[in-house]
Amino acid sequence: MKIAKPLTNLIDSFQKLPGIGPKTAQRLSYYLLHVPQSELDNFSNALSRVKKDTKLCGICRNISEDDPCPICEDNSREKITITVVEQPLDILSFEKTGKYDGVYHVLHGAINPLDNIGPDELYIEDLIGRAEKNKIKEIIIATNPTMEGEVTAMYITKRLRESVPANGDVFIITRLGRGIPTGATLEFADEATLIQAMEGRRSL
Amino acid sequence: MKIAKPLTNLIDSFQKLPGIGPKTAQRLSYYLLHVPQSELDNFSNALSRVKKDTKLCGICRNISEDDPCPICEDNSREKITITVVEQPLDILSFEKTGKYDGVYHVLHGAINPLDNIGPDELYIEDLIGRAEKNKIKEIIIATNPTMEGEVTAMYITKRLRESVPANGDVFIITRLGRGIPTGATLEFADEATLIQAMEGRRSL
Repeated sequence: MKIAKPLTNLIDSFQKLPGIGPKTAQRLSYYLLHVPQSELDNFSNALSRVKKDTKLCGICRNISEDDPCPICEDNSREKITITVVEQPLDILSFEKTGKYDGVYHVLHGAINPLDNIGPDELYIEDLIGRAEKNKIKEIIIATNPTMEGEVTAMYITKRLRESVPANGDVFIITRLGRGIPTGATLEFADEATLIQAMEGRRSL
Repeated sequence: MKIAKPLTNLIDSFQKLPGIGPKTAQRLSYYLLHVPQSELDNFSNALSRVKKDTKLCGICRNISEDDPCPICEDNSREKITITVVEQPLDILSFEKTGKYDGVYHVLHGAINPLDNIGPDELYIEDLIGRAEKNKIKEIIIATNPTMEGEVTAMYITKRLRESVPANGDVFIITRLGRGIPTGATLEFADEATLIQAMEGRRSL
């Protein structure tokens, strides 16, 4: 049976999204047939406008309506601490803790030779530039604890150490603490995590 | 932190979809920022057109670009056998088997008093009408084997038996076979399924 063309168009579009397989794409598309047209129009508008109405902040490369973004613009935030993240979404996780009042730098990815993503594809030089030009106390590298994230962290550390001393500035480079996540049980912790947890132990 | 408004609009729209939680909605929305504008426009168009460009087939109530739909229009299909399904998507599953050459009837739901869906909200009278007006040999009730699907099957059977004998027509009403699905192991079969499988056993 041929599915009606307007439906297959929608199914195809859903299927291109990460983590959405053919079955889910079908289910979502058929579901949307029962939704009021006004809601479909809202969704449709949101989709076509999401890129047009946003830009990257010229300072931290976060996605924002304005340049600079509200975080870089906010005078109550400590500009001397920069947390480096892979994705804009990662900023949300830090903001939700409510415990961080520094600023961010978004790389938009991690070094991954298999996907042809080298340092030049990321906003690493922008970070070096920020560190050279501004007074910085600490750079917290919060890339993911994956192979790619670790390589990226190492590369950034090396670049920062090379470039910035020329400036005479002094700052520390740190990496997020590693160990057993809150709420987890030791039984299910993998070896790499346990080793990191032992290395990172703290006196009480 | 406030997320940029164009992004929250998109996140909100994704979050209204069934099975898509706030985390997935965020992930999909941020992902779409990396997609070419032309693809966003295609997706956006597909969404706004999916309802406008489709209608329900006047005969079987399947979703289609044309009325009647290609299945009802197809002269090579046996019009004397009607399979009754809850959703248009269910038709796809039967068509994929390639073993069915009858026609369908889509109810667009199942009787569910908790959701205020009674027989009048479904296309049941249309089915009775088809059975009264046309020569039918068999009606296969293929609603889901859930509480709602079973109630709907019972209701339809009762209505068909009431209405159609007046016409003098004779057809049989069947329900899909129940038992252990192909590829499953007995170990994990639930009791209800095993009872149905015993009742539906066949001689070899």
